[in-house]
Amino acid sequence: MITVLLIGNGNIASHLHAAFLTADHIAVTKISSRNLEHVPYADITIIAVSDDAIAEVSSQIKNPFVVHTSGACEIDELKNTTHKGVFYMLQTFTKNKEVNFNEVPFCLEAENAEKQELLEKLGKIIGKNIYTVNSTQRKALHVAAVFVNNFTNHLYSTGNEICKKQGVPFEILHPLIKETASKVTSLSPEKAQTGPAIRNDLKTIKNHLDLLNIQQQQIYTILTKSIQDGH
Amino acid sequence: MITVLLIGNGNIASHLHAAFLTADHIAVTKISSRNLEHVPYADITIIAVSDDAIAEVSSQIKNPFVVHTSGACEIDELKNTTHKGVFYMLQTFTKNKEVNFNEVPFCLEAENAEKQELLEKLGKIIGKNIYTVNSTQRKALHVAAVFVNNFTNHLYSTGNEICKKQGVPFEILHPLIKETASKVTSLSPEKAQTGPAIRNDLKTIKNHLDLLNIQQQQIYTILTKSIQDGH
Repeated sequence: MITVLLIGNGNIASHLHAAFLTADHIAVTKISSRNLEHVPYADITIIAVSDDAIAEVSSQIKNPFVVHTSGACEIDELKNTTHKGVFYMLQTFTKNKEVNFNEVPFCLEAENAEKQELLEKLGKIIGKNIYTVNSTQRKALHVAAVFVNNFTNHLYSTGNEICKKQGVPFEILHPLIKETASKVTSLSPEKAQTGPAIRNDLKTIKNHLDLLNIQQQQIYTILTKSIQDGH
Repeated sequence: MITVLLIGNGNIASHLHAAFLTADHIAVTKISSRNLEHVPYADITIIAVSDDAIAEVSSQIKNPFVVHTSGACEIDELKNTTHKGVFYMLQTFTKNKEVNFNEVPFCLEAENAEKQELLEKLGKIIGKNIYTVNSTQRKALHVAAVFVNNFTNHLYSTGNEICKKQGVPFEILHPLIKETASKVTSLSPEKAQTGPAIRNDLKTIKNHLDLLNIQQQQIYTILTKSIQDGH
């Protein structure tokens, strides 16, 4: 049995709580970060709060092993005086939408092998994709995630905007979006690259630019150049 | 029975040929665009050649109804003197990978209702998502597809590059890529937007920029600004 204390009220805390509640071999307690006076003991204390609050919250915890869940913060952002670690799940969580933890990569960091093993054990109880990731690697993953998630989603928005202007339903693009995402899991994105930029099809590129507003043109131009430069 | 003549040697011609061969109610013939001397008769002649070759190839066809498959070209790019149309499939096709035509939106255009109906009939024999799309709308879809497919794939490449530099396997990002794509089929991309840009989290944005090369920084900056401007 592993005892887990979850601190936080956001999406990550809620989804983890739900997963731990139904898992065998875990006894979980969840508290708000606004109520840290009487913190119960736990083998692993998971601080799932905003990046800015990690230092303050962790400084008040006396439990033996405290981890945060942030992709952007180093392990030393934790200010507890006991053991520290990171339990970072590289996935996008949606409120009120159930999470399939088998589709969640767990990126784990600890100060020693014993604690690393404990985190892995915890990860494996609710999921299956477990990675050992140090703070430098995690930072790289976090910025890479901004590209493949936040920025990609913004390109979907732009596509939606372009469709709306001509009264075309965005749903026509859904299968393409899905297939594009699916393709890079079997083919490297470099090899999967298609389109007018990589073909240097100047006529199509010019036609496309004529259809766009200034900000869309800037995005189009910079991404086309980057594709052509090969990075 | 609909007789179909396919002209072309690329991915689209091959995949369409395979689909028509196994379909009921279709008799399909496929020829190369380099051999147009004795073109057999067909109810629908589909020219699946590069955009630049559509005019030249179509000008040689005497069959009653000639359509191209290009998202970028207008219907009048066809130079046959009989009926014209467009049979545009908005999907990315990979060589040697079987296509599920139920996941392919057929964007169809014809000069009159009768021919439109014939194209729809053809589309429904191999697929199920049939749309009537005029030349202006198709151009919008084509440029939108560049954003959600070509540019998105390039963002995957950038993510891959960032991971490689730190020795992190790109596969850690696969579930996030899939979930991001899946999310916008149930939630609008505007509502699905998350991340440091939309939160205006300047500290994280600065940390991210520090990890990137100049071209990546340019992409990061312009997309962050575009997210913050709300378009």
